[in-house]
Amino acid sequence: MTDTHTATTDGDLDVFALASRLSGGHVADNVEILNQLEPQDAAAVLVLLPVDISIEILDKPELNFGPEIVVALPRQTATILLAGMSADMAADIVQQLEEPARTELMQALDEPTRTTIEGLLAYPENTAGAMMTTEFVTVPANWTAERTLQHIRQVERTRETVYAIYVLDAFTRRLVGAVSLRRLISGEPSARIAELARSPITTSPLTDREEVARLISRHDMLAVPVVDKAGHVLGIVTVDDIIDAIIEENTEDAQKFGGMAATDQPYLQIGLPGMIRKRGGWLCVLFLGELLTASAMQHFEGELEKAIVLTLFIPLIMSSGGNSGSQATSLLIRALALREVKLGDWWRVALLELPTGLILGAMLGVIGLVRVVAWQKFGIYDYGEHWMLIGLTVAAALIGVVVFGSVAGSMLPFMLQRAGFDPASASAPLVATLVDVTGLMIYFSVALLILSGTLL
Amino acid sequence: MTDTHTATTDGDLDVFALASRLSGGHVADNVEILNQLEPQDAAAVLVLLPVDISIEILDKPELNFGPEIVVALPRQTATILLAGMSADMAADIVQQLEEPARTELMQALDEPTRTTIEGLLAYPENTAGAMMTTEFVTVPANWTAERTLQHIRQVERTRETVYAIYVLDAFTRRLVGAVSLRRLISGEPSARIAELARSPITTSPLTDREEVARLISRHDMLAVPVVDKAGHVLGIVTVDDIIDAIIEENTEDAQKFGGMAATDQPYLQIGLPGMIRKRGGWLCVLFLGELLTASAMQHFEGELEKAIVLTLFIPLIMSSGGNSGSQATSLLIRALALREVKLGDWWRVALLELPTGLILGAMLGVIGLVRVVAWQKFGIYDYGEHWMLIGLTVAAALIGVVVFGSVAGSMLPFMLQRAGFDPASASAPLVATLVDVTGLMIYFSVALLILSGTLL
Repeated sequence: MTDTHTATTDGDLDVFALASRLSGGHVADNVEILNQLEPQDAAAVLVLLPVDISIEILDKPELNFGPEIVVALPRQTATILLAGMSADMAADIVQQLEEPARTELMQALDEPTRTTIEGLLAYPENTAGAMMTTEFVTVPANWTAERTLQHIRQVERTRETVYAIYVLDAFTRRLVGAVSLRRLISGEPSARIAELARSPITTSPLTDREEVARLISRHDMLAVPVVDKAGHVLGIVTVDDIIDAIIEENTEDAQKFGGMAATDQPYLQIGLPGMIRKRGGWLCVLFLGELLTASAMQHFEGELEKAIVLTLFIPLIMSSGGNSGSQATSLLIRALALREVKLGDWWRVALLELPTGLILGAMLGVIGLVRVVAWQKFGIYDYGEHWMLIGLTVAAALIGVVVFGSVAGSMLPFMLQRAGFDPASASAPLVATLVDVTGLMIYFSVALLILSGTLL
Repeated sequence: MTDTHTATTDGDLDVFALASRLSGGHVADNVEILNQLEPQDAAAVLVLLPVDISIEILDKPELNFGPEIVVALPRQTATILLAGMSADMAADIVQQLEEPARTELMQALDEPTRTTIEGLLAYPENTAGAMMTTEFVTVPANWTAERTLQHIRQVERTRETVYAIYVLDAFTRRLVGAVSLRRLISGEPSARIAELARSPITTSPLTDREEVARLISRHDMLAVPVVDKAGHVLGIVTVDDIIDAIIEENTEDAQKFGGMAATDQPYLQIGLPGMIRKRGGWLCVLFLGELLTASAMQHFEGELEKAIVLTLFIPLIMSSGGNSGSQATSLLIRALALREVKLGDWWRVALLELPTGLILGAMLGVIGLVRVVAWQKFGIYDYGEHWMLIGLTVAAALIGVVVFGSVAGSMLPFMLQRAGFDPASASAPLVATLVDVTGLMIYFSVALLILSGTLL
């Protein structure tokens, strides 16, 4: 791949050799090869390829510079390829074009293609409407299986999938049923298509892509029809688009949980300015939150001076709260995403996290206490005359902090969802920051309670 | 749903009414209803349903107590249903059965079903071999399109999918091609099937399910054939199983990143003992790591006593390192999982993380310095006569810690993958723990460098 790339920048790329190589290859491999080229070079290769192979390549969501390649193509080739592509992918590319290329290209398109693309562009990003394609098979309910099969043979080349056939009322054109191709070919040729059809499972154009993914996975469908309120089919969302959407959604969620803005670019293409933009904002916000720990400690300055030994355990106690919190948050983000837990279940979750936090906190508390006792007894460190009280302070604070971390970490995704945000916006660093400040308060309050009259 | 459940525990569940309701419903809804019942009650309902509906229900991976239900069924019904199920799901259920039920049931099965299930059980979990089903369509290469279609019509009911047809060499029975059903029906009926076929994309039985998912998504396939070294088809992995696998894999990754052992049970079914088991181990390990922070601070005890003002910024500096580290880790885990970055790219990543860490650290350093200056100037807190040096210490330590966090956080997934572990095993708390101890060292070293001769 480095070779190809070097050849490009050297300007001695043999586009003819490459085109002949591509016309024999698998489309996924072709896309990978073109991804190594400059968009102008990729366009030069596409021009030389048979039209159907070029269309197949442009149709792959894995192609990195689709819009740049389309702009670099001769206008006439570009319009032919866009008209031949599946409508959802063509709309995706048009959407990413800069002006004036976008308007120019739209005007050059044939009327039906333009209308279809304009219609798809009207739906908000990440909805069924924006993902759907308009190339599907519909037949009137009064057709026979044989006539339907005949129709499919004729239109097969122009449809994204023919494995689901949608049956429309012959007069109102409303969706009344869906037939799978396997059922169609195994049925009696003379059977009316309406008799072979099942009642369809549908979705609406404004449904979120996560919801559509759940529906497709729940019913093991190859495609789901998108219908308007009157019951007319606007398009279909196919299973391969859904897989791409699930992977993208999971990447975004993982990045958010890591405490950064989501990015859909491959890592090595983000670049330094992009990295700073995506990570800097969140890091500064979290830092401002963490500045409260300095304020909290200033507040307890008198206690710190009297019992400097207390500072030794501050990082330990704070991080234990953060760790238990991010465990709870990661569990609940997935549980909410998979609908294992609903918004109304928050109290059942709290009732489970409370004893969980108590037991986990007690486990860590015992280890912490053993550590203080051991270090004291074996003479590794001298915690002073009140060493047992210090050990108890550490143990009690650990229980308090882990309980608070578990409960706060589990409730945060609920609060975000309640407030209309994606629960996945809860990040491990955000939970840690929340728990850090509170953890300090808990630690010093416990210390005041246990050590008053002795150290404090 | 609560009603159904109450009815169950009260013992007055009307299984006849429920069975008649289920026989008219969508399979996904039926599964949800049965998930609310005790396994014995669910079995009682299944016995009353038509066999094909019961099979459809048991075939859904969303059914929670499949093995418990099968055990509760009359032995004869159980064998009929297992024989009718898709082989991969039947093997899944048999695998989860306890002895002696497992052996008893296997012996009661008919010979072909038992052999198939035993074959599938031989493959390790999460591989193509363990996920595949043996119910697919193969035809000899010398058949015509018409004869193939005829064959599909006959066997359609017993195959998981008929949308991909595998063409075998008539003599060696090796896989020579694959034809989609759409291509089959649109081709000439008299055409030889070998002429319609494309060269197949295949996988091997020991391939990891993540790799299979990538293959299916890359080539937009509905199923991928699993072949042995000699080129014989052992089974196929279908797209709906892949979606379930992707979702499960992502849940596991998210939980690992949150710092806990992965669990495939729904959140509310894990229970308190399960929670403690899944979370306690990791939390204790991390706690033992964090105990090093106490040791590190003991090491700098003299400095802490002389300059107690330094303690105020410990939580701030440590958490900034942890946050920048978990950003980098979450980015790289996904990038490695999506193959955007390969093992050999580690130095390109390090070369990007180094300046990223420097700039992000400098941003936080400036905010930290401004904070110290502002508090001092506005009289909110008195950092003493050397306040400017303290501000500079904080700023320099922040840069050092964020650089270390970014680089260490980005390299950890590479090191895990290199050592043969899943990069997703890198968790936000693990990164934080690594960076916490080092962060303290960096902070005190910077302090010694800048404050020697003044405060220290």
